[in-house]
Amino acid sequence: LPWERVKTVSLHGRRDIWPLLRAISFHDLVGVYTGGEDGPKVIARVLKSKGANSFQLIVFENLGYRDQRIREFSIDEVEEQSFHPLNFVLLKRIRLPIVPLRLGIDDEKYIHKAGLITKREVRAVALSRLDVFDTNTVWDLGAGCGSVAIEVAYLAREGMVFAVERQKSRSMMIRKNIERTGAFHVEVIHGFMPECLESLPDPDRVFVGGGLSGNSATVLEEAARRLKPGGRMVVHTVLMSSLEKCLSLFQRLGWQHDMVQVQISRSAALLGSVRLDALNPVFVIAGHKPI
Amino acid sequence: LPWERVKTVSLHGRRDIWPLLRAISFHDLVGVYTGGEDGPKVIARVLKSKGANSFQLIVFENLGYRDQRIREFSIDEVEEQSFHPLNFVLLKRIRLPIVPLRLGIDDEKYIHKAGLITKREVRAVALSRLDVFDTNTVWDLGAGCGSVAIEVAYLAREGMVFAVERQKSRSMMIRKNIERTGAFHVEVIHGFMPECLESLPDPDRVFVGGGLSGNSATVLEEAARRLKPGGRMVVHTVLMSSLEKCLSLFQRLGWQHDMVQVQISRSAALLGSVRLDALNPVFVIAGHKPI
Amino acid sequence: LPWERVKTVSLHGRRDIWPLLRAISFHDLVGVYTGGEDGPKVIARVLKSKGANSFQLIVFENLGYRDQRIREFSIDEVEEQSFHPLNFVLLKRIRLPIVPLRLGIDDEKYIHKAGLITKREVRAVALSRLDVFDTNTVWDLGAGCGSVAIEVAYLAREGMVFAVERQKSRSMMIRKNIERTGAFHVEVIHGFMPECLESLPDPDRVFVGGGLSGNSATVLEEAARRLKPGGRMVVHTVLMSSLEKCLSLFQRLGWQHDMVQVQISRSAALLGSVRLDALNPVFVIAGHKPI
Amino acid sequence: LPWERVKTVSLHGRRDIWPLLRAISFHDLVGVYTGGEDGPKVIARVLKSKGANSFQLIVFENLGYRDQRIREFSIDEVEEQSFHPLNFVLLKRIRLPIVPLRLGIDDEKYIHKAGLITKREVRAVALSRLDVFDTNTVWDLGAGCGSVAIEVAYLAREGMVFAVERQKSRSMMIRKNIERTGAFHVEVIHGFMPECLESLPDPDRVFVGGGLSGNSATVLEEAARRLKPGGRMVVHTVLMSSLEKCLSLFQRLGWQHDMVQVQISRSAALLGSVRLDALNPVFVIAGHKPI
Repeated sequence: LPWERVKTVSLHGRRDIWPLLRAISFHDLVGVYTGGEDGPKVIARVLKSKGANSFQLIVFENLGYRDQRIREFSIDEVEEQSFHPLNFVLLKRIRLPIVPLRLGIDDEKYIHKAGLITKREVRAVALSRLDVFDTNTVWDLGAGCGSVAIEVAYLAREGMVFAVERQKSRSMMIRKNIERTGAFHVEVIHGFMPECLESLPDPDRVFVGGGLSGNSATVLEEAARRLKPGGRMVVHTVLMSSLEKCLSLFQRLGWQHDMVQVQISRSAALLGSVRLDALNPVFVIAGHKPI
Repeated sequence: LPWERVKTVSLHGRRDIWPLLRAISFHDLVGVYTGGEDGPKVIARVLKSKGANSFQLIVFENLGYRDQRIREFSIDEVEEQSFHPLNFVLLKRIRLPIVPLRLGIDDEKYIHKAGLITKREVRAVALSRLDVFDTNTVWDLGAGCGSVAIEVAYLAREGMVFAVERQKSRSMMIRKNIERTGAFHVEVIHGFMPECLESLPDPDRVFVGGGLSGNSATVLEEAARRLKPGGRMVVHTVLMSSLEKCLSLFQRLGWQHDMVQVQISRSAALLGSVRLDALNPVFVIAGHKPI
Repeated sequence: LPWERVKTVSLHGRRDIWPLLRAISFHDLVGVYTGGEDGPKVIARVLKSKGANSFQLIVFENLGYRDQRIREFSIDEVEEQSFHPLNFVLLKRIRLPIVPLRLGIDDEKYIHKAGLITKREVRAVALSRLDVFDTNTVWDLGAGCGSVAIEVAYLAREGMVFAVERQKSRSMMIRKNIERTGAFHVEVIHGFMPECLESLPDPDRVFVGGGLSGNSATVLEEAARRLKPGGRMVVHTVLMSSLEKCLSLFQRLGWQHDMVQVQISRSAALLGSVRLDALNPVFVIAGHKPI
Repeated sequence: LPWERVKTVSLHGRRDIWPLLRAISFHDLVGVYTGGEDGPKVIARVLKSKGANSFQLIVFENLGYRDQRIREFSIDEVEEQSFHPLNFVLLKRIRLPIVPLRLGIDDEKYIHKAGLITKREVRAVALSRLDVFDTNTVWDLGAGCGSVAIEVAYLAREGMVFAVERQKSRSMMIRKNIERTGAFHVEVIHGFMPECLESLPDPDRVFVGGGLSGNSATVLEEAARRLKPGGRMVVHTVLMSSLEKCLSLFQRLGWQHDMVQVQISRSAALLGSVRLDALNPVFVIAGHKPI
């Protein structure tokens, strides 16, 4: 075992599973100080809930003692076992994600409803405007198929990402896409805004990609209120009315803000040459909450 | 009869029917000095060949003489009649064109194959680059459904417009669209380029909108050769290879030229507001042949 | 004298000088039945007021009588002459306009303040959306250097065009550009809107290109009110707030309307090849007043 | 000292300084096993060469022995000291980079010649097309002010980035920008292509942003030859001829490839509202070398 490549995290006496989630997003070998006999089961349940079934658990018990034991399990096998309180779990990835997590994943690599995805190039611009730092807590409101949340997670590798989506079918797609990319530190929040935002930690960054049709003004205001001072909110819209709403909110709040219109055309083969296929223009508005 | 609104043309001793064609494009009352007993029939045949069946013929014979006669015919009734050599024909429009001839006709007013039309806004830009003068002879090569040729005809009201198209179904559409708009001084040339260009008069303006796939280089060169000194050639393409070909031709010929890319987005209703629907970008290249 | 090319108009017993103005816009030889001894002076004054000093007046007096007289004058020489009440004036263009009147005149052919001109390609789109008919009365509000009004005049050849502009320096530029292009049936209205619109005839078409900063809502509403039923109003703006105002006005009025965004890039020479130079995007909104 | 936050690297018996460079790009505390009495000096020289003068060196000698010694130096003070062969160096960042390294850094945060920078949004698209993985070796050819190379370095955090630039003034700007952002695992190569590429390790990714004017075809071909199988090459150009060259190279090589045109407009304040300011369109071509 290449121990120098093992990322270790601790669950000792705390309920925070985010360090574990981040670790399995970016590492193939993760060592967990579990802190108790239930430790391996807790880990297995977390992994199961995230669809992270590409990991094997190697449980080390009573290490260094005469009755030390090393056993290997799939995440499904752990539940019916019992463990010594002194244990350490090594998570070993046995299957790479179908889609390696990174920036600029092709649209067709994400499971999505046709046409309803933030296109690769526009996503890139939105991400660049979001100005994500490693440790940021990020909300993606109206997350759709999760493409933005997932690539944000690649940047916020020490942070937490919440993908909020009210449609059941879409929130299922986000889960699928998390599984496919291994972006396990994205948490899917299936619920209505602004109510479902209440329980989330205040964000450093908010991305609003959709779900603004009905009570959009309320959602924008609530997100703006919850955003940490110094934070940034990026809204991505194709609707003139949402653009208007968003610009006037930022103006009213006195936030520094700007907007870009992104017009992408992609090449398509035609008669042995290429022509340009235009994507619909998108407005990307970025507001900075004063410190 | 409001004689001051009658546009008069003469067919006396000449074969040139263009003055007649221009007259019926722009006037509801056209008086023709026919110059012979066959005159009324010749006129009726011309009108029939252009689908200009919205005109009635009023034939005045032996005017001022005792046996003067005034008879009214549809264009279909003229053929079996016989006329006195001294006659004058008054053409009277009895039905307005379905689509009034002008600049900026809506795409859906033209009969066309879905997607295969120079879009209204792009057409406007192409026309503005073509720099048409009233008396110009204009070729529209690869005329498609004829929308450019027809609006060119509105500008070249004292000129001649040739819409060249090799596909039978398209050339039929052009004829239909001429009928609908009453742009009778557009002549449809159904044939292969460059061969079919041979018999046409040298143009002051050439518009190339399509049909450049195969032997495009040859067609462009032949059109450039035939263009009158001081003339202008506008090429409209979505293909990178055609753009390249066209720019390098103009460069090689030493013509002054420029290019614009036109990117239009049209509003579409969405959720009680509007979003933008992008049309594919088009390149419009204009070259000026030195005097 | 090629009499068949003479366009004749009559000023007999009426004050309407528009037929004269249209005639000198499109014809090099214009015959005027003046109807009185002051006729030649009235004509000379009209021409002077429009800067149409490229015409010579040939005055025919008492034609067919023994004391018939034919005299030739510049427009400056007429004032101090006296004429027989029976006279006919032939206007003869002795210098062509510097810039031939047509569609798609190059930006640099218009005298304008740098950057403050509706760019050639955008102008073409705006004109195509305006859907001008020959006989239309057209208002161009916030006319700037007059480029749109002038090219509208090319299309509304039997109509009347009013170019409204509140800035003195700009209204002077419009006059210059009318002189340069010979679009004499454009009338410059130097004044504040909406007050100065009161005396104008109701329009068939309204183009709003500028001057909407301050009391824009009022101007738009007044223009909409005055527009003839079945008429069309086209607003061209770069400001998001004007776009918003305009869309909501049309919505409130219940007019059918649409919008296009026009993004033009022009080629520029670079390193022996070409690159694209983007013009700023413009929104063109068109509203149709119900009949 | 929070030892759990110390990133340790080893220079023992090897000349590879990249692990050290990556460590100081991403960590504030870096422990180095130097492997020799010259170790601290070697480290100080490396840091000096990269302008990484925001680090303090804490040298631990003979740790655990009676004559153990802990001394602190600035990078300028180390050269004249002598050290025990058994030493360990702790690098401690005492000043954060002026510009935190991340994706989407504002254009004005980079020192650059006006207009000569890959604009933030276009940079984002180019990066998303480049599909960078953590461990990639990346060439940035014609690096300009280094903005792309620097943000690539943020993504290739376990890789090596080479910013190649032939103009002295520009390569100096890249150095400055590396200092400002702390992207120390970007190596500036000041030299002429393709010659200067010879000594570089084969790349997984090549970005070509400029410097293609003269012998562009040669450079593109050489870069394509050196690219590892399965690698990706992204060319970003505004020149039609470079676009053409690049498309035909990829076609000739039989590489899968695509192109996007990126047209960004940025909001600008005007009259209390916003208008759109267009950036010039850019072509981004991506080619995939077969495995």
